[in-house]
Amino acid sequence: MDLAEESLELHRAWQGKLETGVKCAITDGQELALAYTPGVAAPCEAIAENPDAVYDYTIKANTVAVVTDGSAVLGLGNIGPAAALPVMEGKCALFKTFGGVNAFPICLDTQDNDEIVAACVALAPVFGGINLEDIAAPRCFEIEERLNDLLPIPVFHDDQHGTAIVVLSALINALRLTKRRPDGVRVVISGAGAAGIAIAKLLLSYGFTTITLCNSAGIVSTDNPRANEAQKAMLAVTNLDNVSGTLADALVVADVFIGVSAPGIVTRAMVETMAPNPIVFAMANPVPEIYPDDALAAGAAVVGTGRSDFPNQVNNVIAFPGIFRGALEARAERITEPMKLAAAIALADLVSPEELSPEHVMPDPFDPRVAVAVADAVRRCAEEDRKTTT
Amino acid sequence: MDLAEESLELHRAWQGKLETGVKCAITDGQELALAYTPGVAAPCEAIAENPDAVYDYTIKANTVAVVTDGSAVLGLGNIGPAAALPVMEGKCALFKTFGGVNAFPICLDTQDNDEIVAACVALAPVFGGINLEDIAAPRCFEIEERLNDLLPIPVFHDDQHGTAIVVLSALINALRLTKRRPDGVRVVISGAGAAGIAIAKLLLSYGFTTITLCNSAGIVSTDNPRANEAQKAMLAVTNLDNVSGTLADALVVADVFIGVSAPGIVTRAMVETMAPNPIVFAMANPVPEIYPDDALAAGAAVVGTGRSDFPNQVNNVIAFPGIFRGALEARAERITEPMKLAAAIALADLVSPEELSPEHVMPDPFDPRVAVAVADAVRRCAEEDRKTTT
Repeated sequence: MDLAEESLELHRAWQGKLETGVKCAITDGQELALAYTPGVAAPCEAIAENPDAVYDYTIKANTVAVVTDGSAVLGLGNIGPAAALPVMEGKCALFKTFGGVNAFPICLDTQDNDEIVAACVALAPVFGGINLEDIAAPRCFEIEERLNDLLPIPVFHDDQHGTAIVVLSALINALRLTKRRPDGVRVVISGAGAAGIAIAKLLLSYGFTTITLCNSAGIVSTDNPRANEAQKAMLAVTNLDNVSGTLADALVVADVFIGVSAPGIVTRAMVETMAPNPIVFAMANPVPEIYPDDALAAGAAVVGTGRSDFPNQVNNVIAFPGIFRGALEARAERITEPMKLAAAIALADLVSPEELSPEHVMPDPFDPRVAVAVADAVRRCAEEDRKTTT
Repeated sequence: MDLAEESLELHRAWQGKLETGVKCAITDGQELALAYTPGVAAPCEAIAENPDAVYDYTIKANTVAVVTDGSAVLGLGNIGPAAALPVMEGKCALFKTFGGVNAFPICLDTQDNDEIVAACVALAPVFGGINLEDIAAPRCFEIEERLNDLLPIPVFHDDQHGTAIVVLSALINALRLTKRRPDGVRVVISGAGAAGIAIAKLLLSYGFTTITLCNSAGIVSTDNPRANEAQKAMLAVTNLDNVSGTLADALVVADVFIGVSAPGIVTRAMVETMAPNPIVFAMANPVPEIYPDDALAAGAAVVGTGRSDFPNQVNNVIAFPGIFRGALEARAERITEPMKLAAAIALADLVSPEELSPEHVMPDPFDPRVAVAVADAVRRCAEEDRKTTT
């Protein structure tokens, strides 16, 4: 039985990967009177008097909504909210399994930005945070920005920032291995959608200075015929010389290739034109931009993909559970740029100098230290931030 | 420590009465690949091809949204969505504890009907049913009706229909005890809000013929100065002689008093004017329309209240978990009038002729047969209905 058949059979047996658990026993009239009426009036009144008390008495303290409109689900595309539900349930299961965070799937039956924003604002009282998932670019940018402006809880589009954090953490360790500093490094990012742009921004925040974005028409420049508004806006901070050309042109003497784009578009020959000991993260799924064997044969010093069957899997699961856990613990109102950087550095630091090798630049997703380290980094960052601003 | 203090302390310790549970183990890369990417693409594609498959592969099959706008919470009034959350969590805990149904609280940050309807429609893909809770009348009527028209899943306002079902079940047994038939009985309902009107309608469906509704200004008639549109509409089926007067006037020779109104408004003297062996359900909470001792002293044959410290507690918890469980099992698109009647009869029948007494007209909420019996009755009814219409 192949993986798809086995997964289908298991999903049929589970009939939902999630369930609601009850933390209060209700086995007699006294317990019923404490957990429900009339006793429950007391916490209700406490919250009515002091809105912050909702974090003391309810699930809001430790619960995240995983929100999608089903418009960009995995590699399956715009399959709609109901068909997206198995992915969102899976995401919620990962939140709980890896981060101890309660998460509930919200699959919205609309792909209109105003309606999505209105629904999320309406829903917000129950949740301590919102994880946006599998919403197509460029709509995802506007939705995240508007919700972060409107709501006093963190709103985080994992496809953007989770991916960026994990890529940065891998890159930090790849730089350590190849003895490079971020400000001396030429980075080429293939794929200028939600993930590619977020990676570019986070790398710039970390201290990278020389980044070239490519879309399906080649280098994003003022001459690129397919560059959209979001991509053009990135020209203020990337490709500062406004060079035009193909992806192959971009890769000449580049130190780092980051692919969040399409299968098989990078050849051995292209990697051979890169700077010595290049770093290649080819994360198109399931078929990467270039297979690890080919990249290594062409001289790559470190290679990562999105797949679990090759070394250095770039997998968001090492980031988002800890990020929300830390943000919830700190009651942060946003996931800020310093929190993302702190998370990436904490992840990189989990790989000890002794363990660090070309096949091991990322921590194991099942290492129980991962979510704790990320949560601690994010929480400390939020607490610092609060000290500074108050 | 009194109940309120104890409940507050417990709620602080629980920090949420609910949590999300994970039904699929994710302890290694293989399990991750089956529950999440890449395996999860298989159930996603199956649902994209056949929308009904969402019931086979996801939580939709057994999950209900408990939706409120916080406008009419317990006796606390319009305390808003965040302060309503402890009640909604409690309701969800009851769904799971008593009915094995997963339920998640949705506390909407709006009291605009159009926005509430839009949010529920947007949310619907994840849920197999919607339980509306603690939404003020008359807005609750419109919201429920619009949602039932728009959505292919049952939408059920428990404050109306759950209460009506439980009252009818108690009344069926009280009639058995006092050897009455519904069509020969004069019923007075005090309180013409959501619950009172729903009780009247369900009693009419069951076969009661003579019902008088009273609001705070007395008998609802064309002369009643405070009768709203919903109450006036009830004049087509209640108070057919269009009598005017006070609640005291209405009670003269009445067989049944049903109170969902205000504390202490029924006196011994008023009960003494009722027909012989009257039935009194005084459900104002926590102080009933008349205390059981007084009603019994005035000649009442059967007395019930909303309180757990007197016999015959009229408590919705014996109805809603089984109702949704049955509707979900049958994949019913609505909770129909025949399903409500079937549930009420099943509840009444759980009290055996040997057990039936003036102090015992209702089953015990902790009797494990309760939810099963209600679910079976509702499911059979839904299956019958499907046979008839196809």
